[in-house]
Amino acid sequence: MTARPLVLASASPARLRLLRDAGLDPRVVVSAVDESQVVAVEPRAVVQELATRKAQVVAGGLSDALVVGCDSMLLLDGRVLGKPADAAEATARWQAMRGRTGTLLTGHTVIDAGTGRAASGVGATDVRFGRPTDAEVSAYVATGEPLRVAGAFTLDGRSAPFVEGIDGDPGNVIGLSLPLLRTLLAELDVRLTDLWAS
Amino acid sequence: MTARPLVLASASPARLRLLRDAGLDPRVVVSAVDESQVVAVEPRAVVQELATRKAQVVAGGLSDALVVGCDSMLLLDGRVLGKPADAAEATARWQAMRGRTGTLLTGHTVIDAGTGRAASGVGATDVRFGRPTDAEVSAYVATGEPLRVAGAFTLDGRSAPFVEGIDGDPGNVIGLSLPLLRTLLAELDVRLTDLWAS
Repeated sequence: MTARPLVLASASPARLRLLRDAGLDPRVVVSAVDESQVVAVEPRAVVQELATRKAQVVAGGLSDALVVGCDSMLLLDGRVLGKPADAAEATARWQAMRGRTGTLLTGHTVIDAGTGRAASGVGATDVRFGRPTDAEVSAYVATGEPLRVAGAFTLDGRSAPFVEGIDGDPGNVIGLSLPLLRTLLAELDVRLTDLWAS
Repeated sequence: MTARPLVLASASPARLRLLRDAGLDPRVVVSAVDESQVVAVEPRAVVQELATRKAQVVAGGLSDALVVGCDSMLLLDGRVLGKPADAAEATARWQAMRGRTGTLLTGHTVIDAGTGRAASGVGATDVRFGRPTDAEVSAYVATGEPLRVAGAFTLDGRSAPFVEGIDGDPGNVIGLSLPLLRTLLAELDVRLTDLWAS
């Protein structure tokens, strides 16, 4: 049988790497979504709505592909944290979040562009931050990495030593939950292992 | 200042990738350790002893390097599971472990070859296995991946969709805990961020 084409509606290299490491080889198609149009307010609903919009915009231009859209945010003390604006904000974030536990939310939507059917779900993973010293925070911010990522940290990059542990799926923290993707594909009658590049 | 040379006393590409992703660029030096010589019996003591032996053998031939040794095992129902012997055993393992929770133990030893000082610690991460179907287990075993890894699964490879979640450090499951490495280096008066490749 021929594997269905898989499309990742995200420019995130971390998401692409997660899929490739799991044996999937998606095409990347990115379309702009106007985040100011989001009507949801509750954090889980926001990431879900954004994931769906991203997948819908891309699926609209395709036929017979499985399109995956995702959106991630860090929840800490009831606040939603995206990318920090600058180095000063990244430093302040780390000074505030060290020793604390946040929750990384990732919304996922898979659309079967052939049938129009869709499946959605939000993954939530608790993240227990370590206690990097001021010198370590300063060195980390100087790398520029925290400015490029939601929550100002990575689990698969330079701040991995500053995360003590997680409770949940690590891929969800990086930006895409593979066990959740497997479940959503199954809802669309697709077996993930049938998408493995041969 | 000049960064101290870091040496990974392991042939594991997964461990090397964890270190590189975190900004470290170790040299790999592998020496054979006779695992039949291990005197420890309790699982945590076994992985710790093996990690120390691996680091010692490599550190003995070096000066002024920081040598990292690691050893990993999966504990499930009080049994210690290494690499499966063949495809039939890998299949039986997955049929037994789906829906269950195991604990991935990784022993770590860092030796400062310049001073002879050493720091050691065992990381333990709970792994909640999902419920892959018989067809998925069969497809996974056919890839050959589970035959190459302790516990017959990967968190960073094709079986990632079959792991529902973890509690602890994901790197520890893959083979090397970066937050624990940071702590052990600090015990040897080395700051991890000072080892970042510039």
